[in-house]
Amino acid sequence: MEEEVRWLDEREARVWRGIVGVQQRLSAVLERGLIRESGLSGADYALLVPLSEAQGGVLRARDLGRTIGWERSRISHQVTRMEKRGLVAREECSEDARGSMVRLTDAGRAAIVAAAPAHVAAVRRHFFDALADAEIDVIGLALERVLDRLPDNDG
Amino acid sequence: MEEEVRWLDEREARVWRGIVGVQQRLSAVLERGLIRESGLSGADYALLVPLSEAQGGVLRARDLGRTIGWERSRISHQVTRMEKRGLVAREECSEDARGSMVRLTDAGRAAIVAAAPAHVAAVRRHFFDALADAEIDVIGLALERVLDRLPDNDG
Repeated sequence: MEEEVRWLDEREARVWRGIVGVQQRLSAVLERGLIRESGLSGADYALLVPLSEAQGGVLRARDLGRTIGWERSRISHQVTRMEKRGLVAREECSEDARGSMVRLTDAGRAAIVAAAPAHVAAVRRHFFDALADAEIDVIGLALERVLDRLPDNDG
Repeated sequence: MEEEVRWLDEREARVWRGIVGVQQRLSAVLERGLIRESGLSGADYALLVPLSEAQGGVLRARDLGRTIGWERSRISHQVTRMEKRGLVAREECSEDARGSMVRLTDAGRAAIVAAAPAHVAAVRRHFFDALADAEIDVIGLALERVLDRLPDNDG
């Protein structure tokens, strides 16, 4: 260990345990619920959300990866799995011969519409029900600032 | 969609985008940094942290999985990969014939000790530097409450 490292102090360590814990344990609880209620994995849901919110239900694979923080190969494998189940379709990009597009199919849209109510209820039960209104505002602003400062493709 | 679903309001949606965004995009930034600086993946680091903090550097596979929210098969595959690289070793559990233990090796401890300074510096740069002191306290308390209420094995 180098002398000049500023390790996390106790207050910071509590926050970081909270962030990592939510990422690991809350995600796991929500994913088990998704699979049980709707047959979708967390990875399925992660892809379906930005596609369902995109204009025309279509995004460049590259932009989809940037949105959810995945490497190209991980996006590609997941799209292949979901294509086989009819949830999305790959298309050539008309403007860029190297870029491929991912389109939400009708079945994909039906799957997320069917999954969303139980998922939102689980998010409410396991996350928002534990928080006070004032905390919701503080956390929302703070995390928005964190995300705005994140680099797109660099560590 | 069912009538009785309470969808997230705008303030809640901002928080949830923050939580999901941190989970996806901040994780990706930190993982790229880990790989570049130390050759460890995010999954390697996730396992090494609780092992390095455990008494004697050893945990039951089941408890390790519960701590980081992973299913048994995912823990098992990751342990196999890390065993091949000499970072951890599997052992029989002396108290429970069905349970296996995971032990941090000297090489595993050296790997996390070497990786930690750059990782903590990246956590500080990309997360804590964006936050005010008062926000750190609010977020720490709130996420601790969320985690305390989470079920261990149920959605």
